[in-house]
Amino acid sequence: MSVSVGTPSSSAASGPASTQNSLKQLLELVGKDLESVNCLIVERMHSPVVLIPQLAGHIVASGGKRLRPLLTLASARLCGYEGERHMGLAAAVEFIHTATLLHDDVVDESELRRGKPTAKAIWGNKPSVLVGDFLFSRAFQLMVADGSLEVLRILSNAAAVIAEGEVQQLLIANDIETTVEGYLEVIAAKTAALFAAACEIGAVVADRPKAEQAALVTYGRALGMAFQLIDDVLDYASSAADMGKAVGDDFRDGKLTLPVVLAIAQGDERERAFWRRCLEEMEQSDEDLVQAVTLMQKHDTLDIARKVAADYCTEALEALEAFQPSDMRDAMQEAARFTVARSY
Amino acid sequence: MSVSVGTPSSSAASGPASTQNSLKQLLELVGKDLESVNCLIVERMHSPVVLIPQLAGHIVASGGKRLRPLLTLASARLCGYEGERHMGLAAAVEFIHTATLLHDDVVDESELRRGKPTAKAIWGNKPSVLVGDFLFSRAFQLMVADGSLEVLRILSNAAAVIAEGEVQQLLIANDIETTVEGYLEVIAAKTAALFAAACEIGAVVADRPKAEQAALVTYGRALGMAFQLIDDVLDYASSAADMGKAVGDDFRDGKLTLPVVLAIAQGDERERAFWRRCLEEMEQSDEDLVQAVTLMQKHDTLDIARKVAADYCTEALEALEAFQPSDMRDAMQEAARFTVARSY
Repeated sequence: MSVSVGTPSSSAASGPASTQNSLKQLLELVGKDLESVNCLIVERMHSPVVLIPQLAGHIVASGGKRLRPLLTLASARLCGYEGERHMGLAAAVEFIHTATLLHDDVVDESELRRGKPTAKAIWGNKPSVLVGDFLFSRAFQLMVADGSLEVLRILSNAAAVIAEGEVQQLLIANDIETTVEGYLEVIAAKTAALFAAACEIGAVVADRPKAEQAALVTYGRALGMAFQLIDDVLDYASSAADMGKAVGDDFRDGKLTLPVVLAIAQGDERERAFWRRCLEEMEQSDEDLVQAVTLMQKHDTLDIARKVAADYCTEALEALEAFQPSDMRDAMQEAARFTVARSY
Repeated sequence: MSVSVGTPSSSAASGPASTQNSLKQLLELVGKDLESVNCLIVERMHSPVVLIPQLAGHIVASGGKRLRPLLTLASARLCGYEGERHMGLAAAVEFIHTATLLHDDVVDESELRRGKPTAKAIWGNKPSVLVGDFLFSRAFQLMVADGSLEVLRILSNAAAVIAEGEVQQLLIANDIETTVEGYLEVIAAKTAALFAAACEIGAVVADRPKAEQAALVTYGRALGMAFQLIDDVLDYASSAADMGKAVGDDFRDGKLTLPVVLAIAQGDERERAFWRRCLEEMEQSDEDLVQAVTLMQKHDTLDIARKVAADYCTEALEALEAFQPSDMRDAMQEAARFTVARSY
C-alpha cells in the first residue's frame, strides 16, 4: 500500500515551508567536503568479498540526505576548522548510521526504504546483519586512523546508546501504555544521540572550548529529536513517493510514536479498544490505518507532534547563538528549519 | 535430532587425548585474572534497558571456555606484564566474540548453542541483532577507556575481518565447488583473526618488542585455525551432550567445512550427486546425515582434518619458542594441545 492518508499540515510554529528551509545553503558551503566524503565512503566500503561493497553500495547509494556527515562537516567549519580530518570522521558517522539502517531493516522487516527495496528484501537477513557489522567495524577503523581518543569515546558511547534505544523501542512496541516521556527517551537514544555526536566531533577536531562543544551537542540533539518527530509524523501524513517508504509502516509494526501515544491518551474507552486491537493484538487492516489517522486528526495529534518538533527546532536555533554570526551559522539554522518543514 | 553419529577418533598426530591436554594449567595461572574479567563482563553488560543484561547474560553465562579472554590474559602475563589493563581488554575481546555469536545465531538460525536454547530461540531475531550491536559498542568503550590506539587498531581490524569472513562463509555455503583454500581463508577470517588479536594485545599492553608481538600473533592465529577445524570435525563426530550443539548443524546449514570439502574432492560422480542434492539443493533427511558421515569415513576426511588441525597446533607450539621457558609458556602450549585433543 502506498496511498497517502492524511494531509501534511504546515505548522505555524515552524514557519511557512519555503524553499529557504532547505539544505541548499549548507550544501553550497560544504558540498565540496561532502564530495570527498562520498569518495571516501566508496573507497572504504571496498572488500575482496564482493558482496560487501555490492550490498553496502546499495544502501549508501540509496543515499538519503547525508544529514549526519553534513553536520560533522558543518560543525567543524563553523568552529573555524581548516584541516581535512573532519571528512574521515564524517564518513565514520555515515558508516555507523548505515550499519544501524541495515540492522533496522532486519529488525523492522522493512521491504522498502526511501522508495527502493531494502538490502534485506534483495539479499535476505543474513548478509544485512553481517555487512552492518562490517560497516560498523570500518567506522572504528576510520576513527582509529584519525587517532583521536576523544572522538572514539564520543562515537562508541553514541553507538551503545543507539543500541539501547533500539532495544527499548522493541520493548515499547505493542504497548499502548507507552508514555510521552517513554517515547521521547527512545528517540533521544536511537536518533538524537548520533546527531549530537556528529556535531560534537566537529568541535573536537577544531579543538574548540568546551562551551562551543556543548552548544553543538545541544544543537545536534535538538535537531535529531525534531528530525525523528517529523519522520514519525510523516509516516502517517506523507505519500510513499515523497517519503520513500510506505505510509503506515509504524502502524503495521505496532510502533508507539508520539502522534499515536497522544491520541491514545486522549481517546475514550472505545478508541483505546481500537488501539489495543490494532497495536497490541496486531489485528489490523488497511481500513484501520485510515481510522487511526482519523483519530489522530480528531485529537489534532499530528499537529501537536509537529509543534513539539518545532520547539526542538527553536532549541537548536538558540544553541547556535553561542557562535558569532556567519554564513555557516545561517546555513545550520536553515537546516534545522528544513528538518521541521520538510515533507519527505 | 541430538544423536551421535560417527566416532571421535583421537588423532595420533595430536598425541593421545589425556587430562594433561586441558586448560587446567592455564586456569590455575590466570584464574584470578579471569574472575576479575568475569566480574567486569557482568558489570559492563549493565544497561537501564533490562532486556539487554538479560539477553547478554544468557549468552555470556552459557559461557563456553572463555578461550579468547584467557589468551589475552595469558599472553600479557607471558610477556611479563604485571598491571591490570589486560583485564578490561580481555573483557572487550569476549564482548566482540559474544556479539558475533549473537549475530551468528540469527544468521545460522540456530536453536541450540552449547546445549542451551540460543538467545534467538528465546527472544527472537530482533533483540539478538541489537544486543549484539550493544556488546560490540561496549567492547569499543572498554578499549577507549584503556586508551591504547594500537589496541583499538588491532581489534577494529579484527572485527572487520571477522565480518568479511562471515559474509564469505555465506557465499561458499551451498557451493560444492568450494576449495580447501577457500575454506581455510574463511576460518582464518571468521575465527583465527580474533584469536590472533586476543594474543597480540597481550604483547601490546606489556609493551614488548615487535618480534614477541609477531610470535603471539602466529600462536593465536594457528591456535584459532586448529580450534575451528576441530569444531568443524566435532560437528560430525560428537554428541550434543559434549558439544552443546546438535551434531549435523553444519550439514543442515549447507556449510562446506573441510571434512566435506575433502570428501567431495575424493568422491565419484555418484557421491558428488549426493553432496549436490544435500548441500546445494538442500534436499536432505536425517538418513542423509548418516550417509554423509559414512562417506567422510570412507575417505578418512575427519581424520585428515584432525591432522591439519594438529599441524596448526605444532605451528602454535613452535611460535612460543620465541619466549623463555616458563610455567605460562607450558600452560599456553598445553592449551594448544587441548584445542586439538578436545572432544567438546
